[in-house]
Amino acid sequence: MDLPVDADRLRADLEANAAFGRIASDDPEERGRTNLTGTEANRAARDRLVERFEDAGLEVSVDPVGNLVGTWTPDSADPDAAPVASGSHLDSVPEGGIFDGPLGVYAALEAVRAMRDAGVEPARPVAVVSFTEEEGATFGNGLLGSSVATGVTDLDEVLAYENDAGETLGEALDRIGYRGDDEVDPASWAAFYELHVEQDTVVEEAAADAGVVTTITGITHCEATIEGEANHAGATAMGERTDALAAASEFVLDVEAAANAVVDDSSPSAVGTVGSLSISPNATNVVPGRVEAGVDVRDVTADSMDRIVAAARDSLDRLERERGVETGFERPFDVAPTPMSDRLRDEAHAAAEGAGRTAIDLHSGAAHDAMRVAAVTDASLLFAPSRDGISHNPREWTDWSDCAAATEVLAGALARVATE
Amino acid sequence: MDLPVDADRLRADLEANAAFGRIASDDPEERGRTNLTGTEANRAARDRLVERFEDAGLEVSVDPVGNLVGTWTPDSADPDAAPVASGSHLDSVPEGGIFDGPLGVYAALEAVRAMRDAGVEPARPVAVVSFTEEEGATFGNGLLGSSVATGVTDLDEVLAYENDAGETLGEALDRIGYRGDDEVDPASWAAFYELHVEQDTVVEEAAADAGVVTTITGITHCEATIEGEANHAGATAMGERTDALAAASEFVLDVEAAANAVVDDSSPSAVGTVGSLSISPNATNVVPGRVEAGVDVRDVTADSMDRIVAAARDSLDRLERERGVETGFERPFDVAPTPMSDRLRDEAHAAAEGAGRTAIDLHSGAAHDAMRVAAVTDASLLFAPSRDGISHNPREWTDWSDCAAATEVLAGALARVATE
Repeated sequence: MDLPVDADRLRADLEANAAFGRIASDDPEERGRTNLTGTEANRAARDRLVERFEDAGLEVSVDPVGNLVGTWTPDSADPDAAPVASGSHLDSVPEGGIFDGPLGVYAALEAVRAMRDAGVEPARPVAVVSFTEEEGATFGNGLLGSSVATGVTDLDEVLAYENDAGETLGEALDRIGYRGDDEVDPASWAAFYELHVEQDTVVEEAAADAGVVTTITGITHCEATIEGEANHAGATAMGERTDALAAASEFVLDVEAAANAVVDDSSPSAVGTVGSLSISPNATNVVPGRVEAGVDVRDVTADSMDRIVAAARDSLDRLERERGVETGFERPFDVAPTPMSDRLRDEAHAAAEGAGRTAIDLHSGAAHDAMRVAAVTDASLLFAPSRDGISHNPREWTDWSDCAAATEVLAGALARVATE
Repeated sequence: MDLPVDADRLRADLEANAAFGRIASDDPEERGRTNLTGTEANRAARDRLVERFEDAGLEVSVDPVGNLVGTWTPDSADPDAAPVASGSHLDSVPEGGIFDGPLGVYAALEAVRAMRDAGVEPARPVAVVSFTEEEGATFGNGLLGSSVATGVTDLDEVLAYENDAGETLGEALDRIGYRGDDEVDPASWAAFYELHVEQDTVVEEAAADAGVVTTITGITHCEATIEGEANHAGATAMGERTDALAAASEFVLDVEAAANAVVDDSSPSAVGTVGSLSISPNATNVVPGRVEAGVDVRDVTADSMDRIVAAARDSLDRLERERGVETGFERPFDVAPTPMSDRLRDEAHAAAEGAGRTAIDLHSGAAHDAMRVAAVTDASLLFAPSRDGISHNPREWTDWSDCAAATEVLAGALARVATE
C-alpha cells in the first residue's frame, strides 16, 4: 500500500501547536513549551486541533473530562463498526518539548488525511484522539483522560482534583470550553495505536525509523525506612554507632546489585533504582539517625520485578541483623507490566515493510495512554526516535523527516487495521 | 590538702543561673534553658555572676567582646604574678541544658571560695572566667570570646557579626551593658583549667568523679562531590547508567571502613562520618545525577585524621575509574588536634588523689574554650559525668553530688598550681 504522508503538512501542524505556551530561547537547540491543562495555551491548542479536525472533515466529540476525538467515517465505512483509534495528548510538563504528545495526535490526523488522499477505503471509522492531562503536571498523577475513559478512575473524583490555585479540573474545563457531554469509550474501539517520541536512544542507536513496543514495563515504587541512632559525630566512637546512612548505603548497592543480577540472568530490561534519600538530621557533624529511601523497580514481567523487590526486603532484614538498625518497607505503588497487542505489532511491522521503513521491537520503560487503553482493547505503542533520548526538556528533538517516517508506519498500520 | 567545696552553695548558684531563660516543662527529667548572647536572659545571667564575684571579693573585668573575669588577689599573692585562670561560658544553645558552660564558671568561683575558706594562700592571683558566645548560637561559629581573647579572631570583625535581627554583636553588648574596655589576655595566664560536662558516657561508665582530657581531637570537614548523569529511572538500562547515588553509597561505606581500620590498627578514638548527602534531583523515578557528601573526621593525632581523609580521596579516585563518575574533593575546615598540658593533667590527677576522688584520662571529641586558650598558655580540660551523655537538650543532667565532686578536683588542681 503506497501511503505517502505529507511531511510539510505534519510539520506545519506541529509548529503551529508548538506556539501555544512557547518558551522563548536564544539557543537554537531549544524549542520548549509549557502547555498545562486548563490554561489559555491549552485552550488555544485544543481550539486549533478542533479546527484541523473540521478542515479534514472529522466529526468532533468532547467527553466530560475534556478528551477530544475527531472521527472520520468515509463512505466506505460501516458507521456502526468499531472504529480504529489513534492519538496521544496535547498537554506538556512545565518547560517540556514540542513533540512529547502532539506528535501522536497530529501524526494520527495526518494518517487520516494520507489515507483519504491515497484513496484508502476503510471498512470502519477512524478516530483521532487527544487525551486530557497525560502528564499529570496540573491535576492528578498523569494518564488522567485515558484513565477516566477506560474506567480506571472515577469521573467525579477526577473533576474535583484541584490545581495549585484551588480551581477544580471541572471548573477549568468549563472555563476553557472543553467539558463536553459526548462519550469517548476506548472499549468500543477495535484497536488503538499511539505514536510517541521514544524519550530514550534505542531507536536512534538502531538507526531505525520506528520502534514497536512489545510491553510497557510495570512500575513499582517502594519506600524503605532505616532507623539508626543520631549522635554527635565527634563524641560517638565508631563501635558505638548505629549509622542509618551507612546502612542505607548498603541498601542502595544491594538494590543495584539485585537489578544487575536479574539483567544478567534473565531479563535485560529490568531496572532497579534508589532515586531518593531523605536523611535526618543530614548535618555533617551528626551521625545520621534515620533515612527514607525511594525505590523504583520496572520490568516487562512481574516475576523479575518481584525478584528485585524481594532482594530489597532481604537487604533490610540483613541490615537489621548486621547493623542493628530498625527497618520498614512499603510498596505503595504497583502497576503490572502491560503487554501490547501482538496483532497490532505484526500489522505495524507489515506496514513498515510496505513503506520501506525499518522498525525494531523494544519495550517502554515509561507509561503512556496506550497502557490504559490496553486494559479495554487491543493497543499498540510506536516510537519515533528522540535525539540523544532527551525529553521533558526544551532540547527534546525529533527531525521533521523522522516525524514523517514514523507517521508513515503509523498510517500504514492504521490503514491495514481499518480496512480489515 | 583538704579543700572541701560547699555543694549547696554551688548548687544554689547553678539553680539561680538556670532560671535565666528557663524552659518550662511538665517533665521532671527536663531542666532546660535558652540563654543566647545579647538577650535579657543573658544580661541577667551576667549581672548575677558579677554580683557573686563582688560578694566573693573578686575584682571584675569586662573586655570589648564581653568576656567577664573575676580576679581574686589575696594578700599572699604577688599581684604582678601571672594569674591562674579557670572558667567556661554562660551562654547556651537554644533549648539547651543548665550545666553545659555554667558548671565550669560557677565551679571555678566555688573553687576560689573553697580556697579562701580553707585558708589556702596562693602565690598568684586566681581568675574566674566567663567567655562570650561559646556556642555560636547567635553570632559566629562558636568559641567566639576565647578566639578573640587569644588573637585567633579579629575583634572588629567579630563585633560586626549580626544576629538574625540584624543587630551586631557590638550593639548587642552595648545594649546589655557588657561591652567593656578591660583587657582579658589568656597569654598572660600561668595556666587555665576548664571544667565542663562530658556530653558523652566515658566518665559515667567508668564510675569516675572526673575525666582529665589528654587531647581535644582535631576536626576536619570535607566536601566530596560526585557527578553522574541524571536519567529516567524507567528508560535507562542498568548498563547505561552513571548513578551518582550508587557511587556515593560506596563512598559512605569506604569512609566508614577507613575509620574502622584506623581504630583497629592504631587509634581507637578515630572517627569518620558521612553525616550529610545532598542528592540531585532526589526523585524516586530519576537516576541520581549529582551527590554532595559532607564528611567529618576527628582524632587525637593529625596522622590518623590524614589517613582517613586520604582513604576518602582514594575512594573517589576508584569511583572515577570504576563507575565513570566525576568527583571533587575539598577540605574547607581543618583544626589540628590540641593536646592539653601534661603538667596541668598531672596536677589534676594529684588533686583528685588528694581529695579521695577518682579521675580517668580520656580525649574530647568536642571543642571547648580550653582549645583556644591552649594555643597561648598551658590549658587543661576536666569533665564531670553527663547522665547518658545527653547534652544540648533539656534532659542534660549531672547529679549535684557529681558537680561537687568534680569541682573538688578542679579546686585542688587550681590550689596546687596557684600556690606553686
